[in-house]
Amino acid sequence: MTLQTLNNTRELAQQLRVDSVRCTTAAGSGHPTSSMSAADLMAVLLARHLRYDWQRPDDPDNDHLIFSKGHASPLLYSMFKAAGVISDEKLINGYRRFGSVLQGHPTPVLPWIDVATGSLGQGLPDGVGVALAGRYLDELPFRVWVLCGDSEMAEGSMWEALDKAAYYRLDNLTAIVDVNRLGQRGPTELGWDLDAYAARVEGFGCHAITIDGHDLNEIDKALAHATEADRPTVILARTRKGRGFSEVENREGWHGRALPTEMAERAIAELGGERHLVVNGPRPEGRPVQARPSGQVSLPRYQQGAKVATRLAFGQSLAAVGTQPSVVALDGEVGNSTHLEEFARAHPDRYFEMFIAEQQLVAAAVGLSVRGYIPFAATFAAFFTRAHDFIRMSAISRANIRLCGSHAGVEIGADGPSQMALEDLAIMRAVHGSTVLYPSDATSTASLVAQMAEHSGVVYMRTTRGAYPVLYGPDEVFPIGGAKVLRSSPDDHVTLAGAGVTLHNCLAAADQLGRDGIRARVLDLYSLKPIDTQALLEAASATGDRLVVAEDHYPAGGIGSAVLEAFNDAGHPVRISHLAVRDLPGSGTPEQLMKAAGISADRIAEAARQVLST
Amino acid sequence: MTLQTLNNTRELAQQLRVDSVRCTTAAGSGHPTSSMSAADLMAVLLARHLRYDWQRPDDPDNDHLIFSKGHASPLLYSMFKAAGVISDEKLINGYRRFGSVLQGHPTPVLPWIDVATGSLGQGLPDGVGVALAGRYLDELPFRVWVLCGDSEMAEGSMWEALDKAAYYRLDNLTAIVDVNRLGQRGPTELGWDLDAYAARVEGFGCHAITIDGHDLNEIDKALAHATEADRPTVILARTRKGRGFSEVENREGWHGRALPTEMAERAIAELGGERHLVVNGPRPEGRPVQARPSGQVSLPRYQQGAKVATRLAFGQSLAAVGTQPSVVALDGEVGNSTHLEEFARAHPDRYFEMFIAEQQLVAAAVGLSVRGYIPFAATFAAFFTRAHDFIRMSAISRANIRLCGSHAGVEIGADGPSQMALEDLAIMRAVHGSTVLYPSDATSTASLVAQMAEHSGVVYMRTTRGAYPVLYGPDEVFPIGGAKVLRSSPDDHVTLAGAGVTLHNCLAAADQLGRDGIRARVLDLYSLKPIDTQALLEAASATGDRLVVAEDHYPAGGIGSAVLEAFNDAGHPVRISHLAVRDLPGSGTPEQLMKAAGISADRIAEAARQVLST
Repeated sequence: MTLQTLNNTRELAQQLRVDSVRCTTAAGSGHPTSSMSAADLMAVLLARHLRYDWQRPDDPDNDHLIFSKGHASPLLYSMFKAAGVISDEKLINGYRRFGSVLQGHPTPVLPWIDVATGSLGQGLPDGVGVALAGRYLDELPFRVWVLCGDSEMAEGSMWEALDKAAYYRLDNLTAIVDVNRLGQRGPTELGWDLDAYAARVEGFGCHAITIDGHDLNEIDKALAHATEADRPTVILARTRKGRGFSEVENREGWHGRALPTEMAERAIAELGGERHLVVNGPRPEGRPVQARPSGQVSLPRYQQGAKVATRLAFGQSLAAVGTQPSVVALDGEVGNSTHLEEFARAHPDRYFEMFIAEQQLVAAAVGLSVRGYIPFAATFAAFFTRAHDFIRMSAISRANIRLCGSHAGVEIGADGPSQMALEDLAIMRAVHGSTVLYPSDATSTASLVAQMAEHSGVVYMRTTRGAYPVLYGPDEVFPIGGAKVLRSSPDDHVTLAGAGVTLHNCLAAADQLGRDGIRARVLDLYSLKPIDTQALLEAASATGDRLVVAEDHYPAGGIGSAVLEAFNDAGHPVRISHLAVRDLPGSGTPEQLMKAAGISADRIAEAARQVLST
Repeated sequence: MTLQTLNNTRELAQQLRVDSVRCTTAAGSGHPTSSMSAADLMAVLLARHLRYDWQRPDDPDNDHLIFSKGHASPLLYSMFKAAGVISDEKLINGYRRFGSVLQGHPTPVLPWIDVATGSLGQGLPDGVGVALAGRYLDELPFRVWVLCGDSEMAEGSMWEALDKAAYYRLDNLTAIVDVNRLGQRGPTELGWDLDAYAARVEGFGCHAITIDGHDLNEIDKALAHATEADRPTVILARTRKGRGFSEVENREGWHGRALPTEMAERAIAELGGERHLVVNGPRPEGRPVQARPSGQVSLPRYQQGAKVATRLAFGQSLAAVGTQPSVVALDGEVGNSTHLEEFARAHPDRYFEMFIAEQQLVAAAVGLSVRGYIPFAATFAAFFTRAHDFIRMSAISRANIRLCGSHAGVEIGADGPSQMALEDLAIMRAVHGSTVLYPSDATSTASLVAQMAEHSGVVYMRTTRGAYPVLYGPDEVFPIGGAKVLRSSPDDHVTLAGAGVTLHNCLAAADQLGRDGIRARVLDLYSLKPIDTQALLEAASATGDRLVVAEDHYPAGGIGSAVLEAFNDAGHPVRISHLAVRDLPGSGTPEQLMKAAGISADRIAEAARQVLST
């Protein structure tokens, strides 16, 4: 292991600047000036503080480096070149090109990148999750270094992150803020007022260090100091955007612009020309990872007919799945409503209270997934909308996270529309690679929670507030992507399809219709994405393409749309009678509100009669 | 005008507590203890500081009172009783009942409520918008008072709000934080550490006052002091949850629980019994409102065939619409990308830079709409996902806000997926009462921007990064809810439907097909919600139900789903060939990425040929 002298590091910093200019000019786009301001910071970090085995990116002892200011990707990729893991040719000819892993903003298609960034204000919250894993679960001495922009300090999520970092005393986390004073379209709010930043950081319980971000000695001391602090550290570095090239340095109008070729040539000359240094920075001390003993998962078993809320079944099942030592639970300060508290009681060491900060709730899950954990985050389904940009980005990160949203739909009753998730199915279905589950009873909930733990991507489960009868025997299995036929006969007249609470209404409607001699097949669409197209086709075929679909959700993009899309994709368009919540609800009892929304048993039966009469 | 003595105010506070207990016990649910902690604060405010003409809630001089801790609705409604505007009978028998305006969380179905709250962390950001209007646009001396919970201080959005309040020196804004130490499921992060809160508040540039929230004198002085400060004030009040009833005061386990009847009787007795005081608090000084002179709107006119990005047309058209004095623009620090800077140049006094804080960006729009302004907020379409909970809540507020999201889809090219909106149409379509527009050219953009200004509800426009030919003559009109047939003949074989960039691809595909003698009708679906069902039915009818729909969006919930839903609702199911972005994109040129996603002209033409061959 060779620690670099600061003199060599100066050369390295200039190389990072030159390469940032070269790759962006070659690509014709990108953010060279935002890279140049942070080059000294990253050069010292790479050469002297980041403990990383570049040949073994999966080494659990490696430090973690996250570019929260993802638009500085030229700097990050230039660091990879300096570390000797990508070639100069690949940097220059690959950056931002079609099919290349060197994308415009960092994504974990490269093994040295943990999470996708580029939507500002996310890398630091993600880093909090990684640091939580290191401090409380891995119990490994790795550090998490996050390069932040100054503009993104305007995002509330950054303060959620610092708040939680301090609360959990994440002394293994260091944020380095590149205070270059210039945002995309002009000066930032706080400019170079490092004291103002420091007051905020200290107010939020973290250790603030203010430095000249171009003074290698100051940088070196601050980074060393950060490793010794007993709290999370935020290094506030005063820098100059475009540092090192006089034509753009500290000037407005150069955000996100590649330099034209001739200008780039002058920049490279002023920066001392091309270099091809390869750095040998510090390596982690290899420590054997403790294998965690795995317990037997014994899912709860529910008696058919007993009334059990799916949110309770979720909590109980997750507590059972929690005997697997990788399973971690994250609460948005509503664990007594989502029933995540069942997990907390069983596995308090793997339960993290994130309080009412849904962005950090999801980001912590993303960070934990970086370290291979199986995070389940839960809050009211409506409040996951608060974190949707994080959910969207987690799909780009290919993160494996599980979200459980409780209190869905008008069924919640008196609390009113602010607490009712009525768009969540549409929103979560639209996420790339997502899985969307909506069980109707406790047995199916238990089966699906167990599968969620094994499933990759963003997996969302919607649960219901009220207690409804257990519909299935305890040994029934519910594969993701399946559906269940709960009522059928050889000559059914109409199919009633629902999920969650409307499935119970469909069953009651089938009973009503049965009394009039109308035989209704009832379909449980517990898996909305993927949806069981075959089951839909069979039901349609068996009932002459007569279908009623009822959902406790607004009409656009939810269960009805999922059904229409499935039929369309199968090449068999079917008209459905679509019952959904079309007016803005208020308070009331669940029964009053479902009736008013037209998704009650009566209304489903009426729709079935209409379908049969036309 | 009678200012209440503090002795009377003590009685008032007890009345507010008793009524909070009574209405929740009668309803069987709600949050009495969270109301009781803040009763002294609100009694002094109502009796001595809130300048409000209760008979004239539309008086522009009235102060504004927002309950950011919306679950304390029993306290708010009890204040309305004390102000003499709702009856005791309505309070007790209406609260949380079906059809009642006294919903579980405040909604503006009542004239004294500005915005819906209940998703925590939103009332204060909304209040920033109202205060912005008062300070910079109305230039009226009204004050904005926001009652906040301590738990919600964990939401980053609260710090976005204080940051912007300080940046804009909103001395007309006072936040009153009810620090009762107990959240829903246990103690809050900071407990009663008022100094920790104060350090954060002062760090964010606001004036912090710490008080005993049950000492009427201290409250009174703090509220008076707030009206004299030259910055926004945050009153941090140490309180006890359930204050006044010894069986629950400062005890865990009583969040969000109505007291059982016998317990309620004991509580009422301990609080001194029922009272029916009516308060005459201060009234606003009536000031004549200055009528704002309205200019002539002269929309830009674009030459057919010229290449103009719809994002540029948006900015230019909004600048033109800005001659109406109610139009206000809000930027998420990307005004040079969204082209909102065109408005900034023309109307700098009605342009607010919210920096990179999308939650506050949308909340400011909501607050401005409270004062009757016509706010347009713009950022990258992908980043509105950051504010989705605010958008969802704005629909419950019946707010009239306009959002413009630029840089949609893979078409943006090299920046990669973090910057690509690929779910926005699904998300925005799912919002209650929303309007979703996606113009393909500059002329239609101009027409739609002008209509957005007049349209109510949440109106969303998606714009495109690249410049494409102007398709329509400058006098063409584009009613919301309409569609345009751009190519047709009496005997078309197939319909190609798109919006935004894919419409241009549809046109190119039609040209390709035409060379092979295949006549393609081309449909511009510029209005996705409401969608022009009639136009879809006519096109389907004219082309034998052969349709190709192409969208630069993920497949679930977007344009394809909107088309399928429309056909379904019309009772005429049609199978569409649905081209959408199905894999996670990376960087590349727009052409490379659209080809890879299968939404290029070639792929549309190929899909049309397949439709015709089956």
